[in-house]
Amino acid sequence: MKYGIAIFPSKKIQDEANSYRKRYDPHYPLIPPHITLKEAFEADDSTIDELVPELKRVANEMEPFNIRINKVSSFVPVTNTIYLKVEPEENLDKLYEKLHSGKFPQNKNFNFVPHITIGQKLLDDEYSDIFGRMKMRSFKFEEKVDRFQLLYQLENGSWTVYESFVFGKELL
Amino acid sequence: MKYGIAIFPSKKIQDEANSYRKRYDPHYPLIPPHITLKEAFEADDSTIDELVPELKRVANEMEPFNIRINKVSSFVPVTNTIYLKVEPEENLDKLYEKLHSGKFPQNKNFNFVPHITIGQKLLDDEYSDIFGRMKMRSFKFEEKVDRFQLLYQLENGSWTVYESFVFGKELL
Repeated sequence: MKYGIAIFPSKKIQDEANSYRKRYDPHYPLIPPHITLKEAFEADDSTIDELVPELKRVANEMEPFNIRINKVSSFVPVTNTIYLKVEPEENLDKLYEKLHSGKFPQNKNFNFVPHITIGQKLLDDEYSDIFGRMKMRSFKFEEKVDRFQLLYQLENGSWTVYESFVFGKELL
Repeated sequence: MKYGIAIFPSKKIQDEANSYRKRYDPHYPLIPPHITLKEAFEADDSTIDELVPELKRVANEMEPFNIRINKVSSFVPVTNTIYLKVEPEENLDKLYEKLHSGKFPQNKNFNFVPHITIGQKLLDDEYSDIFGRMKMRSFKFEEKVDRFQLLYQLENGSWTVYESFVFGKELL
């Protein structure tokens, strides 16, 4: 089974992101707007049973921190993905590192660029048009992060939450 | 903000349910296949902060139990909803009652009929045709339930998990 780890931002940010995702992101129906902390990795039940206490340990080592969004950005020329850029935040990097060390799969494919995707798999012309217009808009959010979620993927490509991990609140 | 409480069955059952929901349930993109434990209720942040410890307490009072599915059924003539019937299970009733007493909103609209919806909002002719065919098939599942999930609803009608509660594993 495929698992992944993500942060869901507040309803406010999710609603804003969805207003774009609805039109520009084919993953819109598969998962709510999110910040990916760990890309999809394959694991069986016994591996997950072993990782859950590790996830609790990691959650308990963290304290709530703030994330800030100031602008829209894109991964062009690598991919035509448009996203809300999450400004550099030491705690987010720390959390990412914890989830890619020790017992966790070391599935780092790229440098960690925290973001909330709002458009992807766009044709080049579409991309330029849409990104050009989005660049003109203001995106300003700041909010507290105090948890992350372990999800698994269904056959249709959608993701279901298996368990949430709240900073400093897990029973070990 | 609107909240609700649900159990997500295993990937196996979710995949089976989705193979029907994809065609017959307009809520397919809004939430994974689930057993509703508490219908949507309105709550502000401070109410939720108060309810989360209650949900942990309820989870800690429960022990994992099995659910069984033996057949497909429907809510006709009330609504043209087709569902996988979850066989009567005392622990499920107990959990339902706990989530509708004490500090929890008493939003019981119907008798509790635990089920996983696989089709709804069908025209009468569609309904008869689809339900007739489903009735011929065998649906047999038995599996353990050891958690429930608190979700909130976004503007587009979709649901995001806020927190999971695992029986006997919550820090109070």
